[in-house]
Amino acid sequence: MPLSKRGHKKGLIEMKIGVIGIGITKFGEVWGEGLRELLLDAQLRALNDAKITPKQIDSLYTGNMTGGILSGQLHIGAMAAENLNLDKPSIRVEAACASGSLAIRQSIEAIESGAADIVMASGVEKMTDVSVEQVTTALMGAGDEELEGFHGLTFPGLYALLANAYMNNYKLTREILAEVSVKNHFHGARNSYAQFQNEINIDTVLNSTMVADPLTLFDCSPITDGAASIILASEKTAKKLGAEVYITGSGLATDALSLARRDSLLEIKAGRLAAASAYKQAGITPKDIDFAEVHDCFSIAEIYAVEALGLAKQGEGWKLYKEKQTYCDADSPVNTSGGLKACGHPVAATGIKQAVEAVTQLRGAGAKRQVKGAEIGVTHNVGGSGATATVHVFRKMK
Amino acid sequence: MPLSKRGHKKGLIEMKIGVIGIGITKFGEVWGEGLRELLLDAQLRALNDAKITPKQIDSLYTGNMTGGILSGQLHIGAMAAENLNLDKPSIRVEAACASGSLAIRQSIEAIESGAADIVMASGVEKMTDVSVEQVTTALMGAGDEELEGFHGLTFPGLYALLANAYMNNYKLTREILAEVSVKNHFHGARNSYAQFQNEINIDTVLNSTMVADPLTLFDCSPITDGAASIILASEKTAKKLGAEVYITGSGLATDALSLARRDSLLEIKAGRLAAASAYKQAGITPKDIDFAEVHDCFSIAEIYAVEALGLAKQGEGWKLYKEKQTYCDADSPVNTSGGLKACGHPVAATGIKQAVEAVTQLRGAGAKRQVKGAEIGVTHNVGGSGATATVHVFRKMK
Repeated sequence: MPLSKRGHKKGLIEMKIGVIGIGITKFGEVWGEGLRELLLDAQLRALNDAKITPKQIDSLYTGNMTGGILSGQLHIGAMAAENLNLDKPSIRVEAACASGSLAIRQSIEAIESGAADIVMASGVEKMTDVSVEQVTTALMGAGDEELEGFHGLTFPGLYALLANAYMNNYKLTREILAEVSVKNHFHGARNSYAQFQNEINIDTVLNSTMVADPLTLFDCSPITDGAASIILASEKTAKKLGAEVYITGSGLATDALSLARRDSLLEIKAGRLAAASAYKQAGITPKDIDFAEVHDCFSIAEIYAVEALGLAKQGEGWKLYKEKQTYCDADSPVNTSGGLKACGHPVAATGIKQAVEAVTQLRGAGAKRQVKGAEIGVTHNVGGSGATATVHVFRKMK
Repeated sequence: MPLSKRGHKKGLIEMKIGVIGIGITKFGEVWGEGLRELLLDAQLRALNDAKITPKQIDSLYTGNMTGGILSGQLHIGAMAAENLNLDKPSIRVEAACASGSLAIRQSIEAIESGAADIVMASGVEKMTDVSVEQVTTALMGAGDEELEGFHGLTFPGLYALLANAYMNNYKLTREILAEVSVKNHFHGARNSYAQFQNEINIDTVLNSTMVADPLTLFDCSPITDGAASIILASEKTAKKLGAEVYITGSGLATDALSLARRDSLLEIKAGRLAAASAYKQAGITPKDIDFAEVHDCFSIAEIYAVEALGLAKQGEGWKLYKEKQTYCDADSPVNTSGGLKACGHPVAATGIKQAVEAVTQLRGAGAKRQVKGAEIGVTHNVGGSGATATVHVFRKMK
């Protein structure tokens, strides 16, 4: 459902939450920084961008998924406040890979409730200090442990099941699926904070190591360290501080943790529901969207994402890739940051990174990956194999 | 800061969030139920108490600390919604042992923002399926891993440091400290969902195994499985549904994760700050409080708690125990549920259990542990060694 339904019976109220600052670390294998330092780095960059002091922040929300398992560190909310020498309300939220966008949603709720005027939402993940096996096991916490993880399923396996279901029902070919990663690397090569800044071609994807049939290594997002922060404010304060970009819609929906208990494997329903409520609140339709940052943890996930967002009908999302429509200079730009595939996927930082990219585009600061004349962008963040999905609408307002 | 500051410049606005349902499982070693079943049990009990259907719930917040580490299960928000066959917004929050009360605070924020009218807040923890060593390590995620956990400190050790600091500066004796546990077992013996329903005496505490000097086994809360749920609603809806109890104040504050970076070891500052803002919002003083449910993870923590709540001056909290003032039939009843010590401490369920006990008392349903004529009760929930603290004010309203 949309964030605010105060005017429920008479239709949804208008919401305008200003973005006053954004900050992001370089994504990648950051061996010189731990969880705390990564988070602090992003926080300070966002404060610098917002030109405010830490004391002006009323509360903080921080997304993190694997800190407890991989770093022995829970209680990241208190860490986020301590980093800025604050004793204010500071809370960790977690919904696996959707944790970052939940931090944004809770920040909006805090502002809308009157509990806070300026809120910092962050996401941080430290994943490269341990073995790939440890990371794979930790990430499986996003699925259903009893129905999936216990029996040996991993996330590449889950998304391979989705890919096979989709390809058996619709006309997506292996070659067109590879176009998702090719396009995301094209964008990543134009993004200075991306983990991979090199272009690839279809053969790179098709000839890379098989991970879970039909997904090869280049269909899968990498293991990444990174953090991102965004500072939000009430409309009044944001205007005073000269904000150019506002969040006008927030949708969140959930579904069963396991694939076995879903209504259908041919869509990610939570994404569709989240988009519908965010669009309703923002008063937009898919045709109004100038670009989207979506959750491509695996190439197939991006096909589901563009369909959930209504950029294509169910079963036809692959056509956008066949026709190369999702490049930054084409009709339906998707993942100009490079997406999770090329930009990297420090899981809880991803939802905030998507927001950082949306704001960057709407400020016209996208440089070589800029979407010309962009006024409305959406972000789409998924937890697990689709048990949580969040959609936010960002809008440029002069 | 208090939850709502919409009327900030003219003083805080009045807040009334109704409690329409409470549910709690038996606390203890529940070998027949996993994380999902425990949570479902509490959820169904709360729905039954509220006499509403799952579909009437607009969103859910669930506290959980150790699911990822001990059960391989993160993403508990989606699980909470799936349990009730809902696709609505559902979010996990975590601040170590304060996770439960954060779920309550976020539920209030959701209602105050207009995003929801009826919200379910739950807390769940499954801790007895693994070794004590695994639990002790997992719990240490609540402290500062780099400054404390990595060097071998555990939570009994952290609270022993606090106990020694307090006893060296104030006139608390070992015998009086033991009175905390004796009183909590007295209450636990009168609570049917408590893990330990037996009375003990001072010798039981003094003669039990030393854990971390001066704390013995009976100064420490146990390892527990359990879950609790509470259903909150806007004032208007709560009145319609006949709610008798309302939350009128919510305070949350944070501090450094490690003891080393705190201003003082002689108080838990976050608790004092959280109490001050909750009282201010509710328009009460410590003298108005009829009973308190506080965070006694270790006996010494309860002394810090009564001081943070203003029930005694700093350095004098022990006098309440010397004079046996904290029993349910005395002047300052504390932890009528049996507290974390006797009722058990399934960490994220504890914050919700405190609310369940407060509502039970204010409904006059406390049976053999009833505080006569109780009209105002407070709950006090701490994360880690004091890096997060939450205080809520509950009030009976006819």
